[in-house]
Amino acid sequence: MKKAYVISTGTELITGETLDTNSVYISEKLTDLGIKVIGKSTVGDTREFIYNAFVDALEQADIVVSTGGLGPTTDDLTKEVACEVMDVKMELIDEELERLKEFFARRNREMPECNKKQAMFPKGAVRLKNYKGTASGMYLIKDGKAVILLPGPPAEMSSMFDNEVIPLLKRDFSLSISKAVQKTIKVFGLGESQIEEKMADIINNSRGVNIALLARQGEVYIKLTVENESGEDSEKILEEIAGEIEERIGEYIYGFTDDTLSSVVAKLARKRNINLAFAESCTGGLLAKMITDLPGSSEYFWGGVVTYSNEAKEKILGVKSQTLSTYGAVSEETAREMLKGILELSGAQMGAAITGIAGPGGGSEKKPVGLVYIAVGSLERNVVKKMNFAGDREIVRILSAKTALDLIRRELLRGEI
Amino acid sequence: MKKAYVISTGTELITGETLDTNSVYISEKLTDLGIKVIGKSTVGDTREFIYNAFVDALEQADIVVSTGGLGPTTDDLTKEVACEVMDVKMELIDEELERLKEFFARRNREMPECNKKQAMFPKGAVRLKNYKGTASGMYLIKDGKAVILLPGPPAEMSSMFDNEVIPLLKRDFSLSISKAVQKTIKVFGLGESQIEEKMADIINNSRGVNIALLARQGEVYIKLTVENESGEDSEKILEEIAGEIEERIGEYIYGFTDDTLSSVVAKLARKRNINLAFAESCTGGLLAKMITDLPGSSEYFWGGVVTYSNEAKEKILGVKSQTLSTYGAVSEETAREMLKGILELSGAQMGAAITGIAGPGGGSEKKPVGLVYIAVGSLERNVVKKMNFAGDREIVRILSAKTALDLIRRELLRGEI
Repeated sequence: MKKAYVISTGTELITGETLDTNSVYISEKLTDLGIKVIGKSTVGDTREFIYNAFVDALEQADIVVSTGGLGPTTDDLTKEVACEVMDVKMELIDEELERLKEFFARRNREMPECNKKQAMFPKGAVRLKNYKGTASGMYLIKDGKAVILLPGPPAEMSSMFDNEVIPLLKRDFSLSISKAVQKTIKVFGLGESQIEEKMADIINNSRGVNIALLARQGEVYIKLTVENESGEDSEKILEEIAGEIEERIGEYIYGFTDDTLSSVVAKLARKRNINLAFAESCTGGLLAKMITDLPGSSEYFWGGVVTYSNEAKEKILGVKSQTLSTYGAVSEETAREMLKGILELSGAQMGAAITGIAGPGGGSEKKPVGLVYIAVGSLERNVVKKMNFAGDREIVRILSAKTALDLIRRELLRGEI
Repeated sequence: MKKAYVISTGTELITGETLDTNSVYISEKLTDLGIKVIGKSTVGDTREFIYNAFVDALEQADIVVSTGGLGPTTDDLTKEVACEVMDVKMELIDEELERLKEFFARRNREMPECNKKQAMFPKGAVRLKNYKGTASGMYLIKDGKAVILLPGPPAEMSSMFDNEVIPLLKRDFSLSISKAVQKTIKVFGLGESQIEEKMADIINNSRGVNIALLARQGEVYIKLTVENESGEDSEKILEEIAGEIEERIGEYIYGFTDDTLSSVVAKLARKRNINLAFAESCTGGLLAKMITDLPGSSEYFWGGVVTYSNEAKEKILGVKSQTLSTYGAVSEETAREMLKGILELSGAQMGAAITGIAGPGGGSEKKPVGLVYIAVGSLERNVVKKMNFAGDREIVRILSAKTALDLIRRELLRGEI
């Protein structure tokens, strides 16, 4: 499998002012092409550090893609430094100079002298058209390795990568053959280490399938990758292992690859033609926000209420003040009455209610921060789950909402509502 | 100036599945401390590449900070590899083992065997407390260089960095002296270029103050930095320039440095003792979520409703079916009736209502995606603002909620409610 290394240049990227989305875009595309991205590095506009980055990258990878530093100003160094590292001379390309002059002419401006350096190119490099700016990119094969220099502005970079770079890479590295086969199994309700224990033997006998576990705010992704020349049986092995894992983890698996808890709930609710309504306290609208992240959610989401104050709980949901005073706002009884309230208000077939202590304040010995009651179901059939989440306010809220989604998913699967 | 290098480990980061926000957070904090971040690299969970990353980083920098790979699973390698590179032995820390056992005990679980390796530490390393997960971090000084290993989950990493790492760095690299003096002015409702125009002359006469404009989802941060040994007058100049900018940008400035639109609204509502209630359609609970991101929000937030379906708009808020059929759910009239509805339901002094087309579907010639009506105020005094936002579903929803917060802020400042 070919190895690639991605270099992003630009001081704004290392001071944390700007999020480097270019390298993410490129990494994703390269991975899709079946190229293994072994690393990424980000350096400021300093000759020395750019130089080191290219040296390290060329030592380890077959393909090096860099973004940024192709502009006309003095801190645009990538081209010169890359040529220095590869020991390639630069030459002035008249055609490029003409293109630049036209570019400015069309904007009724003289080409500034400094832009002239943008017409300099490494000898033998393929020039990559820039439909959106002044800086052309370049693609150079040296000693069997590809060095690809792209401009920094994401719009310029991405169109150049898609239209110019991908065809060249396919041609020179005959990629179509060796594509990594991937599948991600998404789990909720089990910890990373619990999962690893359950499938230790599968991991130890992984038949050339790379098995990686990634923890994601209460979820665990089990990522399977086969790096194999022959697509045929590699897919077979992957599915074989996926099947074994599914047997072990069972109902804790909520979906695969592109699924999210929301999208799975959406799919099931649509299929079963069930309407949902939520009543939220500590999550403050996060659960509704998650379900409405998906377009078209109005098909199965009636709406919800954020009864943050006790008054709202009584007024909108008809929670008894008796209940609130006797058991407290954070209690199984209140959760149950909130669920009853939203179901009666909405007429939805299935509802969810969440009440808890997200913290950092509001906790007590009897009711610590992280205590959350989640009620899910219909008027006839419902469950209330008591959770004790660890973590800060944000995490407690996210875990609460995700747990509600997972309980809804399980109810929808059971099909008794 | 001390040099730092940031390493992010995790295969999901180089395949482009996950955006690496950790290195951005760390870079920003290090820069604030007056440390020069010379580079960042991201590598997958592969021994060889992690090893190379640490070697390169230690060659170039005084401080190396890595995130990820401290978990219990087999692909968590950072600790071992870093020790190999630094040639430091590891030892089992009983105290840590106890902590881990307790961590699981509190969750009524046996500690899985694989977690034991999390109790292994480099000899002489300072252990960094993790209040949110199992993986402690470590801080080790070797040959005058600091190597800092932090866990990957952003919430765990950031609290550990702020509470444990920063004080140690200040101590060991006596940073307090040459600290950059900073102030961030936060603006909503003006574009980057509009702002730049308004303060062009200030930028051209910046008296040694670095002025950077950063666009952030509808907000613009004007970041002022003075890198100056003598804190005294650098602060004076900074405040002088900040003052000039405030004059130019005026009411569009909602806050400074650590403020958020929510925190500013919260402060004002608390001070004026005003109770808020929201009615949301296209934002689906995002506005309520934003205000309840802050602890103690129950003091000024009554609650809200997510009337996603027309039925919910009629049933909970008493929006007239007449209005919905004549003007449509996305209209000034509906927004106004939603506001009236939530104010009457809640009895809150001030409310906000949002209805719009977040897309990607649902748009039309007359009502395109991005069209959003936002009503804010009281029964007696309210405004409805019509917006046409550009961008995808997520951006439209974020901009809608932020615009509502900004309108509330302006109403609260006016003080007529």
